[in-house]
Amino acid sequence: MSVRLSSPEDYEDLLEKYDTWMFDCDGVIWSGDHSIDGAIEALDMLRSRKKKVLFVTNNATKSRKKYKSKFDGLGIEAHVDEIYGSAYASAVYISSVMKLPKDQKVYVIGMSGIEDELHDEGVSFVGGTDPADCTLEPFSLANFTLDTKVGAVLCGLDMKINYTKLSKAFQYLTRNPGCQFLATNEDSTYPTSDGLLPGAGSISAPLRYALDKDPISIGKPASTMLDCIKAKVNFDPKRTIMVGDRLNTDILFGQNGGLATLLVLTGITTEQDITGQKASPIIPDYVTASIGDLLAVANSP
Amino acid sequence: MSVRLSSPEDYEDLLEKYDTWMFDCDGVIWSGDHSIDGAIEALDMLRSRKKKVLFVTNNATKSRKKYKSKFDGLGIEAHVDEIYGSAYASAVYISSVMKLPKDQKVYVIGMSGIEDELHDEGVSFVGGTDPADCTLEPFSLANFTLDTKVGAVLCGLDMKINYTKLSKAFQYLTRNPGCQFLATNEDSTYPTSDGLLPGAGSISAPLRYALDKDPISIGKPASTMLDCIKAKVNFDPKRTIMVGDRLNTDILFGQNGGLATLLVLTGITTEQDITGQKASPIIPDYVTASIGDLLAVANSP
Repeated sequence: MSVRLSSPEDYEDLLEKYDTWMFDCDGVIWSGDHSIDGAIEALDMLRSRKKKVLFVTNNATKSRKKYKSKFDGLGIEAHVDEIYGSAYASAVYISSVMKLPKDQKVYVIGMSGIEDELHDEGVSFVGGTDPADCTLEPFSLANFTLDTKVGAVLCGLDMKINYTKLSKAFQYLTRNPGCQFLATNEDSTYPTSDGLLPGAGSISAPLRYALDKDPISIGKPASTMLDCIKAKVNFDPKRTIMVGDRLNTDILFGQNGGLATLLVLTGITTEQDITGQKASPIIPDYVTASIGDLLAVANSP
Repeated sequence: MSVRLSSPEDYEDLLEKYDTWMFDCDGVIWSGDHSIDGAIEALDMLRSRKKKVLFVTNNATKSRKKYKSKFDGLGIEAHVDEIYGSAYASAVYISSVMKLPKDQKVYVIGMSGIEDELHDEGVSFVGGTDPADCTLEPFSLANFTLDTKVGAVLCGLDMKINYTKLSKAFQYLTRNPGCQFLATNEDSTYPTSDGLLPGAGSISAPLRYALDKDPISIGKPASTMLDCIKAKVNFDPKRTIMVGDRLNTDILFGQNGGLATLLVLTGITTEQDITGQKASPIIPDYVTASIGDLLAVANSP
């Protein structure tokens, strides 16, 4: 059973227990283009109490640098080295864990966020935003030359997904021996201010189906993302809490990494998802309505 | 165990047993843009012996009329009423089985073959080849008006698949109560003269993933396709044989419908797929190298 936080003492206890606070962003700190009520003040309060604040997002459409400008635009304090995105984690995974040989490259199905992070990690890539790949013109294998140096295909959310990209990726994954099938993340949906759209998991789904094979997924809930943070930040998992709005990504990510977990109800998950007969088997340690509730401590005597 | 056909007597026995011969096309009668050796003569021989010949294809990119011109171009005798495609079967399913109300319409992810067949069955549709939907421009829900009259989404192979089509289909399937999720077929790959590309099943896969729901699939191996043929053609399943190159579509289709099955090895399935430790659990009644082998009867005394 999750603990429902309500009294100022509940929140004060939480602040005493945890030094490092990891936050999902969309549905937690902001929703589309506006910040969640109280989020800015709650983050400021944590910083004033010397808590380490990290932002852990599956959004791979933007690099960390571009993601920071989203914080800036909403007036939320954030630093690039506090931001961990699945594009960055994927680039680190390819260069440092998979150790893709320097003469090999990645075929990207995704947007500039992935390209920027691969570039910063010194990983070569093709596809992505290349106009030759962003086309609805017919794809023909007769006009396709297999690049034998493509050693991995990395899929993230790609709003220019098309049959040429899928066909090229399929060739690399079936014809280049050892070519790895990777996904930045597998969120089923992508939240916008006006509602849900198909998520990154929907973009790798055609290849998953055609190959009858699952990709290695880097983002939450996979532990790869946490390994990437551990390599850069010093924190004690026992004194760390993950705050998120999605049970099967954020909360599961925290649980997989041995962190405490706090679910907020300002995003995807509703009260019905965690109560009643059809409740998820993924149970967060704590539940509160909104990140703004943390401010109750400031008002406590 | 399958019976391996080899002697003229084997083929003669087969002709005596079966009056109605259903053929898959790609990988059986032709491969890409050339006919399989002996296919034309074998079909002529069956017709000369008064066999009923039917063509049963999952290819939904062309209407039956346009599909006939493929036969014509290869010099193969075929008549429109002998051709059953998954686009036609889908249109019949929507109008006659699902009985979509006349004031409702279908959102199409697919090519002109689906549109032509829906039109001929008197079913209204949107999407498909509409230039407004064949775009890589960003999709925004803010500029999208939900058409509440869309009562079904039908997915087939679509070489102009894009994020706008996926996003619109996702809206209809999540926001229009009772909107049906249909697929012409779910072939994982699409064979071309130069190799394999992602198939129709890959095009519905993003929605399947985002919705966590399988579509109703109309083409082989589903019995819907056979129901559609039964409504138009008189045949005795016990004296009918399905000839195909794919175990999980053609042969399973025949078995699901109580037909005899003959596997040919001129397409997707290789000798290795039906022998050895990793052999498929789908066992055809008969196996022969090629449709041209049927001509052995003509040379028998």
